[in-house]
Amino acid sequence: MAAPVRSVLPVVLLGCGGVGRHLLRHILSCRPLHANQGVAIRVLGVADSSSLLVADDLHSNGFDDALLADLCAAKSAGSPLSSLLSRGQCQLFNNPEARRKVIDTASVLGKTTGLVLVDCSATYDTVGMLKDAVDRGCCVVLANKKPLTCAYEDFEKLVSNFRRMRFESTVGAGLPVIASVTRIIASGDPVSRIVGSLSGTLGYVMSELEDGKRFSEVVKTAKSLGYTEPDPRDDLSGMDVARKALILARLLGQRISMENINVESLYPSEFGPDAMSTKDFLESGLVQLDKSIEERVKAASLKGNVLRYVCKIESTGCQVGLEELPKNSALGRLRGSDNVVEIYSRCYESAPLVIQGAGAGNDTTAAGVLADILDLQDLFHKTA
Amino acid sequence: MAAPVRSVLPVVLLGCGGVGRHLLRHILSCRPLHANQGVAIRVLGVADSSSLLVADDLHSNGFDDALLADLCAAKSAGSPLSSLLSRGQCQLFNNPEARRKVIDTASVLGKTTGLVLVDCSATYDTVGMLKDAVDRGCCVVLANKKPLTCAYEDFEKLVSNFRRMRFESTVGAGLPVIASVTRIIASGDPVSRIVGSLSGTLGYVMSELEDGKRFSEVVKTAKSLGYTEPDPRDDLSGMDVARKALILARLLGQRISMENINVESLYPSEFGPDAMSTKDFLESGLVQLDKSIEERVKAASLKGNVLRYVCKIESTGCQVGLEELPKNSALGRLRGSDNVVEIYSRCYESAPLVIQGAGAGNDTTAAGVLADILDLQDLFHKTA
Repeated sequence: MAAPVRSVLPVVLLGCGGVGRHLLRHILSCRPLHANQGVAIRVLGVADSSSLLVADDLHSNGFDDALLADLCAAKSAGSPLSSLLSRGQCQLFNNPEARRKVIDTASVLGKTTGLVLVDCSATYDTVGMLKDAVDRGCCVVLANKKPLTCAYEDFEKLVSNFRRMRFESTVGAGLPVIASVTRIIASGDPVSRIVGSLSGTLGYVMSELEDGKRFSEVVKTAKSLGYTEPDPRDDLSGMDVARKALILARLLGQRISMENINVESLYPSEFGPDAMSTKDFLESGLVQLDKSIEERVKAASLKGNVLRYVCKIESTGCQVGLEELPKNSALGRLRGSDNVVEIYSRCYESAPLVIQGAGAGNDTTAAGVLADILDLQDLFHKTA
Repeated sequence: MAAPVRSVLPVVLLGCGGVGRHLLRHILSCRPLHANQGVAIRVLGVADSSSLLVADDLHSNGFDDALLADLCAAKSAGSPLSSLLSRGQCQLFNNPEARRKVIDTASVLGKTTGLVLVDCSATYDTVGMLKDAVDRGCCVVLANKKPLTCAYEDFEKLVSNFRRMRFESTVGAGLPVIASVTRIIASGDPVSRIVGSLSGTLGYVMSELEDGKRFSEVVKTAKSLGYTEPDPRDDLSGMDVARKALILARLLGQRISMENINVESLYPSEFGPDAMSTKDFLESGLVQLDKSIEERVKAASLKGNVLRYVCKIESTGCQVGLEELPKNSALGRLRGSDNVVEIYSRCYESAPLVIQGAGAGNDTTAAGVLADILDLQDLFHKTA
């Protein structure tokens, strides 16, 4: 039994890869649940890296559910968005017109019915669009970390109306890390320190090393299990963790940028992508790293500690890299690919607030994005 | 530098004990932080169990900060609310007029500027007022568990406009348990199971037993540390945990009441408050329980498990009592008085989402209440 619709959330989705498609499927399968709660999500447009499919009538209900299902199927099969044009009810814009059309849509809807611009891409290219949308009074929900890790001015602009902004899935996928930190800060409880293991890949690698396995073998196994990026150096560089650390540090009010973060890479620069192919790194580079990593694991173990790849955000600065930690701390106990975050504040001083769980995966990330969209519903009261 | 005020949150507080006074102090100390975010909390009234102090002009800024500070000091010193009358700007109503005045205030403000009725008492007496306030369009924030554990119809009425309702601090003080479960459900990820250790007192007792200490000694130590209620049977009965379990079960959509929860008490009924004084229980009752508890701890230990006092909410029902759990699970590893909750769903199927931290204390509970109040701000846009 559907409740009267209280809130209508018009959405334009940027990015239609694994997370974006999962989001659309979640929206479809949640229709009855959301109707029950008096909420309706209307998808008015979907963009991939080359074009934008947008509803003919922006004030309508947006794409019908059959078209959205077909869109997911088409993108999964590698077909372009243009393959949906024959269905009617939509228009296609290729870049750069696509970007202009997103801004136009934001302008038309921003001040009237409102619009949520959802970024599930993995590019820096959306920053301009997102900033323009914020200027036009739109809401923004991000799974894409990159817009929040650009210049500080961009971050500041994006969060300038903080209540119209959600980015839970940029750190720990669906884990309620950002929401919890925001709650704690809002209650006047000053967060003094955040320590986290925020890479499922590096979490897996470090706990396998603890069992005495060799670094090169563990990384290759992680790759074969699909835990790493196609080039594992994308994980081993620590840059993905550093982006999450930067987002958390900025959330705590630190006016810093990537260059202020001390990032330890798990391979030396002479083994980097500029100097060595992925194949060479996997076949001959990796094994040369075994000995030094083994020594560090052993040195930690002799002190009763374990080695973890963590981010550490304190008032004195922000660091990303290997740390020796007590075996019986929340981070030290971590096994497998779970993420874990420890938050220290006045209320959580001697023992931190700990949040742990799966911190990656398209399903989990998309679920976090959907929860973020719904969290904006009080800004979208139906006026009609 | 204060931002323009976007949201004004008028508040009437019921209950002025430890949590209520901490809340008022947090509101005062957060003034600059909230001003920065464009939010202003106006306290229009404060009630204790016998009377209500209310601002002369409901459309004003409410009590000034000096009066609120004095009010906290007066209540801490055991003075009645009437001692504030000489300050002016306020009126006093004794029960039952006080209750009627709260409803009148809700009627006046509910549909205009809105009102947040905050219940930091620990009584069933507020249920009627809260339901009337909901009927008048007010928002409700609860630290008081009891209104949510009455008849199912009362619960249903209180959450009938779910977005105007917050009750984070009823389970795990400031820990983001309710908010996380709500997020997960909203994203269409069905929660299948929640297992939690939700009593700091019983958490402490169970982890001390694991170290081979005697039950009677541990309970007496807990009492002397101020971890238990004046009569430790209030903790050992499991009823406080059962209330939290009921709230979580109802949040998952279970239409159940207290009588549907299987609650294991840690003392037999012949040692209950009706049969034995607190003094007798502490001096002679407790030691008679040592042997059976010791046997259960040992039996668990022989299987490599530990004994925990947990609540378990599944689709098949809701139980509260002792459970044998693996030593290396989130619950099994628990030491001291932290609370911990494991949430299982599609996204957190094999490994649960785990939230752990201090789950009691006036400061932490009041911080959770304040975060809840601020979370309602999008419903309170300043219209002027």
